[in-house]
Amino acid sequence: MCQLLGMNCNTPTDIIFSFTGFIPRAGLTDHHSDGWGIAFFEGAGVRHFVDHQAAINSPLADLVKSWPIRSTHVIAHIRKATQGQVALENCHPFVRELWGKYWVFAHNGDLKDFHPELDGPFRPVGCTDSERAFCYLLQEMQRRFGSQAPEEAALREFLREHCAKLAAFGTFNLMFSNGQALYVHCSTNLHYIVRQFPFASAALSDEEMQVDFAQVTTPKDRVAVIATTPLTKNEIWCQMTPGQFLVFKDGMPQADAGTPFPCQQPF
Amino acid sequence: MCQLLGMNCNTPTDIIFSFTGFIPRAGLTDHHSDGWGIAFFEGAGVRHFVDHQAAINSPLADLVKSWPIRSTHVIAHIRKATQGQVALENCHPFVRELWGKYWVFAHNGDLKDFHPELDGPFRPVGCTDSERAFCYLLQEMQRRFGSQAPEEAALREFLREHCAKLAAFGTFNLMFSNGQALYVHCSTNLHYIVRQFPFASAALSDEEMQVDFAQVTTPKDRVAVIATTPLTKNEIWCQMTPGQFLVFKDGMPQADAGTPFPCQQPF
Repeated sequence: MCQLLGMNCNTPTDIIFSFTGFIPRAGLTDHHSDGWGIAFFEGAGVRHFVDHQAAINSPLADLVKSWPIRSTHVIAHIRKATQGQVALENCHPFVRELWGKYWVFAHNGDLKDFHPELDGPFRPVGCTDSERAFCYLLQEMQRRFGSQAPEEAALREFLREHCAKLAAFGTFNLMFSNGQALYVHCSTNLHYIVRQFPFASAALSDEEMQVDFAQVTTPKDRVAVIATTPLTKNEIWCQMTPGQFLVFKDGMPQADAGTPFPCQQPF
Repeated sequence: MCQLLGMNCNTPTDIIFSFTGFIPRAGLTDHHSDGWGIAFFEGAGVRHFVDHQAAINSPLADLVKSWPIRSTHVIAHIRKATQGQVALENCHPFVRELWGKYWVFAHNGDLKDFHPELDGPFRPVGCTDSERAFCYLLQEMQRRFGSQAPEEAALREFLREHCAKLAAFGTFNLMFSNGQALYVHCSTNLHYIVRQFPFASAALSDEEMQVDFAQVTTPKDRVAVIATTPLTKNEIWCQMTPGQFLVFKDGMPQADAGTPFPCQQPF
């Protein structure tokens, strides 16, 4: 399987702290060493880094750990290959354009016997079940909504429905974004935390590093971090439930996503 | 305007030497400082780096100068904005998927009053004439050839014809690749060199660096480097002629590209 990391903020924020805690799982504290990737939305553009090397040995991951790239929507992935060889074209996240926007997709899980008919404009380049699912989602979005992007509420309902359909084929933990919202589906294992004023200190679980967020934020900042398992050892993370679908905007899950929030932050 | 750099090889080769000579033109020896980018094909995958900062100040460019990424098809670009603000989404090269392959596009020039009807699946994310031309090319490729990729000869003739059409709108120096061939169109200014056995030494024009290619190659290696202006001061580069369209494969322009080669290498 793989692990996922996502971030959604109301102010462009760097992901160095969370990424530093995530990367040891690519061969040091866990075994997800078959490639990695990260995508940052910046305005309408996307900065997309993928590498088929283990993140713990990747010069590119070293750069991302030291370069404060500020973004409101970030999706990262470390891979443990289940379908598709270790190769650059099989690294998540995947990026495609639809309706003049970039869309970013990363998946943790395994879809069995998932071979949809992909006869539209989105075809997989690699050979993973994940990229097939991405192409299928975009194809069906285009079929449903035509040549213009829908309202956000319509897109949200579409994605909720299709995530459930895809999860019927196996495990489908998903992060998906167009830079305007971060859509998250939990099949088995995803946790999130919302950090907001008053900020506290946090210490990573997988690396010796801690940060006092009060020193690096303003009172208006709000940041949601979503990960397969919690990245810090002194904070309370919310565990998502199987089948739960959340939409993160402005650093928090949206109340109208139709699912109750299973825990409250202590902050 | 902008500057272009491309490489096509018969063996995966790193571009550190040429890239090191190219980057000073982004603010030191020339003024192309409104962003930059580079794309490397590796197998079916693409490693795509873009940055809206000047390449001479970019941590990402520093990484590319020191990390030997080996590829047979590379396209790089440094930008001097003419249409479209300085922003990540306006940095070349652009990448899209068609027929299950990634396509990479970079353009030097300026297309006047070029507003094609883009009603197919390829829409610009940014606001440059270049990305419009890329989307137009892919849309017309899909219209002409349908749902399956054509034979290479048919694609070559299609591109030759459409490059001439696009060049009628202004300056259209182009590099375009699907990882199987590097398509190059010259409107005003492009030069290339083919390095092959017996290899010699080369010294950069824009930076204090030289390399003895005999030390870092095998006799079977062949590398073509294409750039807006020559990158080295002790080699003879071929100047492409206005309207010339060349297809590079296995480290050299193809004889059946239909255009005579304007000069011979001394090697």
